[in-house]
Amino acid sequence: MFEEWEGFEPGKWQKEINVRSFIQHNYEPYDGDDSFLAPPTERTKKLWEEVLQLFKKETENGGVLDMDTKVISTITSHPAGYIDKDLETIVGLQTDKPLKRSLQPNGGILCAEKACKAYGYEVDESVREIFNKYRKTHNAGVFDAYTPEMRACRHSHIITGLPDAYGRGRIIGDYRRVALYGVDRLIEFKQKDKNNTITTMYEDVIREREELSEQIKALQELKELGKIYGFDISRPAKDVKEAIQWMYLAYLAAIKEQNGAAMSLGRTSTFIDIYAQRDLKKGLYTESEIQEFVDHFIMKLRLVKFARTNEYNELFSGDPTWVTESIGGVGVDGRHLVTKMSFRYLHTLVNLGTSPEPNLTILWAKRLPLNFKRFCAKTSIISSSVQYENDDLMRQVHGDDYAIACCVSSMKVGKEMQFFGARANLAKCLLYAINGGVDEISKMQVGPKYRPAVGEYLSYDDVWDKFKDMMKWLANVYVNALNIIHYMHDKYCYERLQMALHDSKVTRWFATGIAGLSVVADSLSAIKYAKVKPIRDENGIVVDYEIEGDFPKFGNDDDRVDEIAENVVHTFMNFVKGNFTYRHGIPTTSILTITSNVVYGKNTGATPDGRKKGEAFAPGANPMHGRDTHGAVSSLASVSKLPFADAQDGISNTFTIIPNALGKDDALFTSDLDIKLSDEQKKGK
Amino acid sequence: MFEEWEGFEPGKWQKEINVRSFIQHNYEPYDGDDSFLAPPTERTKKLWEEVLQLFKKETENGGVLDMDTKVISTITSHPAGYIDKDLETIVGLQTDKPLKRSLQPNGGILCAEKACKAYGYEVDESVREIFNKYRKTHNAGVFDAYTPEMRACRHSHIITGLPDAYGRGRIIGDYRRVALYGVDRLIEFKQKDKNNTITTMYEDVIREREELSEQIKALQELKELGKIYGFDISRPAKDVKEAIQWMYLAYLAAIKEQNGAAMSLGRTSTFIDIYAQRDLKKGLYTESEIQEFVDHFIMKLRLVKFARTNEYNELFSGDPTWVTESIGGVGVDGRHLVTKMSFRYLHTLVNLGTSPEPNLTILWAKRLPLNFKRFCAKTSIISSSVQYENDDLMRQVHGDDYAIACCVSSMKVGKEMQFFGARANLAKCLLYAINGGVDEISKMQVGPKYRPAVGEYLSYDDVWDKFKDMMKWLANVYVNALNIIHYMHDKYCYERLQMALHDSKVTRWFATGIAGLSVVADSLSAIKYAKVKPIRDENGIVVDYEIEGDFPKFGNDDDRVDEIAENVVHTFMNFVKGNFTYRHGIPTTSILTITSNVVYGKNTGATPDGRKKGEAFAPGANPMHGRDTHGAVSSLASVSKLPFADAQDGISNTFTIIPNALGKDDALFTSDLDIKLSDEQKKGK
Repeated sequence: MFEEWEGFEPGKWQKEINVRSFIQHNYEPYDGDDSFLAPPTERTKKLWEEVLQLFKKETENGGVLDMDTKVISTITSHPAGYIDKDLETIVGLQTDKPLKRSLQPNGGILCAEKACKAYGYEVDESVREIFNKYRKTHNAGVFDAYTPEMRACRHSHIITGLPDAYGRGRIIGDYRRVALYGVDRLIEFKQKDKNNTITTMYEDVIREREELSEQIKALQELKELGKIYGFDISRPAKDVKEAIQWMYLAYLAAIKEQNGAAMSLGRTSTFIDIYAQRDLKKGLYTESEIQEFVDHFIMKLRLVKFARTNEYNELFSGDPTWVTESIGGVGVDGRHLVTKMSFRYLHTLVNLGTSPEPNLTILWAKRLPLNFKRFCAKTSIISSSVQYENDDLMRQVHGDDYAIACCVSSMKVGKEMQFFGARANLAKCLLYAINGGVDEISKMQVGPKYRPAVGEYLSYDDVWDKFKDMMKWLANVYVNALNIIHYMHDKYCYERLQMALHDSKVTRWFATGIAGLSVVADSLSAIKYAKVKPIRDENGIVVDYEIEGDFPKFGNDDDRVDEIAENVVHTFMNFVKGNFTYRHGIPTTSILTITSNVVYGKNTGATPDGRKKGEAFAPGANPMHGRDTHGAVSSLASVSKLPFADAQDGISNTFTIIPNALGKDDALFTSDLDIKLSDEQKKGK
Repeated sequence: MFEEWEGFEPGKWQKEINVRSFIQHNYEPYDGDDSFLAPPTERTKKLWEEVLQLFKKETENGGVLDMDTKVISTITSHPAGYIDKDLETIVGLQTDKPLKRSLQPNGGILCAEKACKAYGYEVDESVREIFNKYRKTHNAGVFDAYTPEMRACRHSHIITGLPDAYGRGRIIGDYRRVALYGVDRLIEFKQKDKNNTITTMYEDVIREREELSEQIKALQELKELGKIYGFDISRPAKDVKEAIQWMYLAYLAAIKEQNGAAMSLGRTSTFIDIYAQRDLKKGLYTESEIQEFVDHFIMKLRLVKFARTNEYNELFSGDPTWVTESIGGVGVDGRHLVTKMSFRYLHTLVNLGTSPEPNLTILWAKRLPLNFKRFCAKTSIISSSVQYENDDLMRQVHGDDYAIACCVSSMKVGKEMQFFGARANLAKCLLYAINGGVDEISKMQVGPKYRPAVGEYLSYDDVWDKFKDMMKWLANVYVNALNIIHYMHDKYCYERLQMALHDSKVTRWFATGIAGLSVVADSLSAIKYAKVKPIRDENGIVVDYEIEGDFPKFGNDDDRVDEIAENVVHTFMNFVKGNFTYRHGIPTTSILTITSNVVYGKNTGATPDGRKKGEAFAPGANPMHGRDTHGAVSSLASVSKLPFADAQDGISNTFTIIPNALGKDDALFTSDLDIKLSDEQKKGK
């Protein structure tokens, strides 16, 4: 029993590491409105102005303000850094200066070098020597183990965006644990877990024990990081300011160690609110002070940046960090999880102005309080920066203490993690089926030498049969490439600190992804319901298609094609599941290429749906542009038929509407419309 | 077909990597005597004098002449180094200067530091930073995964000498392959093996693929090493001088990369003789020139040195490198494998004077030609530096192209390797059985809390039963510790170059070892045939024994006790075999503590055989000093009853006799005595 816990309701959380139990015993649901919120303090305004100046300088400087080229980023690699020490209430930077990008070569020294070169910097010779001669990287390991087939698939873009040259990300440390328990208690529990091994030293047991040792070392370094900034985080946080600070230092340690594609924060607002409520009752801090801590914390999250290559930025259409924070939702006991802190987090979009990061995500549920729903809508309209996801659906799988990593990947905080898996290009896979494994662009034999489709017109049964075989092959190469990637990531770029903030025994989701779904559905529909004539080049390779007649298109609530889409997802997913997965990760799939659909389309030949060579795919599970001619509701209905059980990692539908289409202010909040919104959001963003 | 192969008889060896096939098709057995041998050339004498001066300086300098403290040893880390460039016909040094010890921290940075400190050197700060912060070592990995129980066993010396802080060694690269095929062909075959993977990417498959990639990189670096010394070793060697040089460069690359406890050379003499015979026939080189190459080659092997800690030197009673070369033996077709080169290798002991390294080992067989046997005996008498092992026995297991690693570990060259496993102290295990797992020296509970032996006198049945349980526990902890060690050695200190000179699919021997066998046998015999009264301290822990009456002692050809010894080996080995072994290595045991028996005894309390606390054990499988009272033949007979099938990694019997005891000169070579010698040598050295 720590003195820092005084005033909290006791529970299981005191005897074990169990943040959810702490929340459930202590949080106060808030049904009120936003009138309690405080505006930014003078300090906040001044500090934010300084940050804006830094952002401006960064843009003027070509996108990067400064880069580390010699100091390799570790949890304790840098002295304390500040924006403006006198103004900051929550402190800590990735390096010694704001916006100075850190050097993280564990993922790949070539990548680190490229990222530097992209902005006119050169990685120091001593660092290059270390990572070329003595310390192997994730990237080097992966390419040592890839088969020629995997390389060919990667090269031809039938498998694409693989995290083999960048950090896989999508692992959320339970950063709240550091605030609630202090680091020493966490080390104690990890040590206990480590001492409990009584089994044979199989290789996976040895790996796990070494990982536990590394986790403990990372926690020790985390304490050091606290000291660097003048805090003793070996003990629990004693008030809301410390709770935010402790939690942020834990997150900071994670991003100092890992440049993951998505470094999400978790689900912290309601947890932090418990401290705020206690301090408000004690009269320790005012609402304005608490909002200031939150504003300064969010400001820090907006400063999170990584050194990335041009290819990376191209694939992700920018430089997202995916500092996703999940807000709201409803508990499995029926009480909603909205607190005043949920409002305060969103309120930063007003106090500091809008920003895509941190990616504030509402876990939307029917039972959310009306006042909060109103406030969300209001903030959405003002900021265009709020993401919504369907809590009613995800709660069934993950309970009520899950969070979103990246854009839609849901996982129980501290209990589940994900092996991120990029995407298989199913549109190209269909073309391989037609061409017997020959790539339609490079004309190389990439897939297996199966028989190509012959004859003047394509036959649906023939193509579907060939497509199934080709998907089976693709799922096998894809999953095995991912097996290599995650083996090497664990070996050379293990997320020590993030995993230290997980239970020692975690559930691993083995994520895969699908790109080009609506192209495939429409193509198969065209072959089935219209007549599709393949155009062959001089070597007999099909390079284009002529369509005679019309055919049902995905996005019009037409079961004839919607069922094809559903069937493709289901079939591919079953092939994925038929493979061995590294560490027995549980296979999931996502259909969520929010931005990379452009790159995928660029590398894919003409398709039987009439899409021309190089044309962009529709994003995620979207219908192809302009083909959903029966209005928004039909379009959404088609997408909503896709089986969530087969694509549990998320289905995205990019849907743009002008604000007025939602009705005029309060009309939105009739319970009727409310339900509809919830359905529409069913599939994620 | 290479032009360098002209004049060789063709065979399978041309189509695959198969050195044995090359030898079998091309070697010329030599039955003549030693009269053809050439004395050292003037150049050799001068060069050796320079080496002797260096050795002298080294001794004067406290045991080490110079040490690298900054340049980390890799295959290509150093520029060419010479003793005296104008005199040397075979070139290549571990660093840039003779006897300058290289810096090899992959096994453990602390060890490397200790080794330097032992001689007044300091490892450079930049190296320490790399290996403490960025590049983990074998040693660090092992200790991250050890259980508290393993640490306790190690600390109390019930398991001892484990290769967790030094290189495991005992892997013989087939260095001949480089001479016969050139490096490019070897790379080509490895690449082919790598491209053949068609299975699922299980973790062991991924590891193997990464290892193949590392092997290929090591071979590429080996070519670079050739260039550093001005040779193009991408192609095969064209004459005997090149064959020796190519082979030595391959060996040199191995010792530049690995500081293994035993870096043995293999079985090279007959292979090299094929080149010598071709060159003699062509008139390319004279006998004197060829002997000069051999002398200079052996000189290089005598210069092999590593940076080692005091603890290491204490355990091994010196600083052995175990550059073991296996000579002679008989082929499975009945032809003996002695060639003129077998004589030339041994003749270096005359031309350069005696030396313990390289460890020239005769694979002794009944069918060896008499002239060679005479020459061996003669050389033994002159030099006291020849090791003998029983080829007739080992040929049954390994065929006719095996070699000895270290002192007695036999393995097929390039096809088998060994995971070296140090020793379990069975004498201490017996004391644990008596004391219920409490260590008799530290008084700590190290073993399981089984019931201790009670009563005024020890009962044989009770002690044997308890001993079996304790051996079962010990075998489990021991094998699992070894599983960790070899996992981590592969992970952090993989023998890239040595394994590149193996087939891609190798057989792995999982070696374990036994110490204190004769102590255990005599102790159990005392309990059984005499009366043994345990003396307990104030806490009831047995710390000494009083023996009433006499009992049969191991080493007197007395089945009553010899059977106990046999049974102990058999029982312990079965417990070892009952465990999971890393990479499914095949368990073997050795009984061969040639030197470390002193250290083991020092850490073991009084035993029921009357041996006092701290007294040395007998070495290997030897009877305890002075207890073999029935003469040499009885003593040897006891040892020879130990089951080779249970201790296939070798049984050693240290046996000192004055030369005259062998009879006067030629009397030795009656066929009668001959057979006896062979039997005596049955168990190794």
